[in-house]
Amino acid sequence: MSERHAFDTAVALAPRGEDLFEGHTSPAYANMIGPYGGITAAQALHAVMQHPGRIGDPVALTVNYAAALTDGPFIAHARPARTNRSTQHWIVEIRQGDEVMVTATVFTALRRETWSASEAPAPQVPRPEDVPRPQGRGRVEWIHRYDMRFVEGEIPAIWEGHDQGHSRTRLWVRDQPPRPLDFTSLAAIADVFFPRIWRRRATLVPIGTVTMTVYFHADAAMIAATGTQYLLGQAQGQAFHKGYFDHSGQLWNEAGHLLATTHQVVYYKE
Amino acid sequence: MSERHAFDTAVALAPRGEDLFEGHTSPAYANMIGPYGGITAAQALHAVMQHPGRIGDPVALTVNYAAALTDGPFIAHARPARTNRSTQHWIVEIRQGDEVMVTATVFTALRRETWSASEAPAPQVPRPEDVPRPQGRGRVEWIHRYDMRFVEGEIPAIWEGHDQGHSRTRLWVRDQPPRPLDFTSLAAIADVFFPRIWRRRATLVPIGTVTMTVYFHADAAMIAATGTQYLLGQAQGQAFHKGYFDHSGQLWNEAGHLLATTHQVVYYKE
Repeated sequence: MSERHAFDTAVALAPRGEDLFEGHTSPAYANMIGPYGGITAAQALHAVMQHPGRIGDPVALTVNYAAALTDGPFIAHARPARTNRSTQHWIVEIRQGDEVMVTATVFTALRRETWSASEAPAPQVPRPEDVPRPQGRGRVEWIHRYDMRFVEGEIPAIWEGHDQGHSRTRLWVRDQPPRPLDFTSLAAIADVFFPRIWRRRATLVPIGTVTMTVYFHADAAMIAATGTQYLLGQAQGQAFHKGYFDHSGQLWNEAGHLLATTHQVVYYKE
Repeated sequence: MSERHAFDTAVALAPRGEDLFEGHTSPAYANMIGPYGGITAAQALHAVMQHPGRIGDPVALTVNYAAALTDGPFIAHARPARTNRSTQHWIVEIRQGDEVMVTATVFTALRRETWSASEAPAPQVPRPEDVPRPQGRGRVEWIHRYDMRFVEGEIPAIWEGHDQGHSRTRLWVRDQPPRPLDFTSLAAIADVFFPRIWRRRATLVPIGTVTMTVYFHADAAMIAATGTQYLLGQAQGQAFHKGYFDHSGQLWNEAGHLLATTHQVVYYKE
């Protein structure tokens, strides 16, 4: 009998009435304060995926981190704000007691065959097997749930505090142990990039993601075909201004298909 | 006595009880079907800006277009889902009758002085005064509310149906007649880019924006300093796949400051 993957345990939700699901924070995905933002995004999306009224697959997800979840149970309230013939708009709120910890919106749709193209080709990088894994044990638990192989811009080994000129990182990443990709785990991986301001400045300033958006360019068939492949991730900041910076990122599979694009805004101090 | 600007008329909202505001669609910003998406985004944001409980300036806005608004009045329901010491997370719903037409989330915050930088420099292009305005009268009303001067990738004059290889557009843009910039008008301008699939394919396929996110990298002082300057806008698609494409965009002022970055997902047919 195979053991349940830590990711499946982390995103498990129990129905608690109409539009309501109960989940629990996961020690396996703990961050410095509260959970890894990617697992919270996955939990919000999973509430929609489990909803009996859902139409279609996720196309867009925006998650807003209003407060760090406290270790323990939470309620995800996922309701279809609008249902059209082949599309649906969702509002999700994650609460602990009376407090809203997370808000999210999700757009799901039935996709049809159309003309298709990409204008964001995967960069040429060494194969994941040829890229060493970082040495040493990280300070937070969640990073051990991912096999990360940095091609460019890994987390600084020395916090020298010099401006690095830009904040781009490229890495191969997949669940550890490997787990076949689905929309929920792809949403989680979209938050895998360590804070761009740490990369840019090689300085450990306090940070916290306040909002993340994920656009899914893969349908269920492309996700299934990706299976346990590594994903190639790339992220770079565009602006760092008065306490908030953004980044833009892309995630390709090993075959070079762009599975998702992602953006986020992160609070920083100093 | 100066006439009220069409933009101010379009975003005007009247309080209708706690968290509720009544607005009206604007003939001046009419699109092919329903209103220009930018004016809808501005109306959703304006409900938050007018809310007596608001803390801080907008940092992030996500607007989801659930259905085309019908010409006439609407109710914007803007509530603070979570209020922290210096930040606030908002949920907005725009309804007509019992139907939800738009959902949105907004993040507002008090900004502090910090280290700042940009990694998205403005491209070198001719000055707005040296760029001719497009000839002819557009088919939809809202485009006459903007002075648009295309530097690259203007709306095709001939729909020849050949793949253009990429979908990038660069243009100078400002309200017409000029109006001093504010957060609300900046949100509206973020949707000014005509559909990237028309640019890429030079083919008029049916389209509709389903979600747009705007990240504000300007504080109130930088917005005020921009005044009635032109903004330099740039947008390019990343993926076109089975009925939905995304684009990423940037908006700089004439001084070269990155005021906002923006992303959206657009439905397309064929």
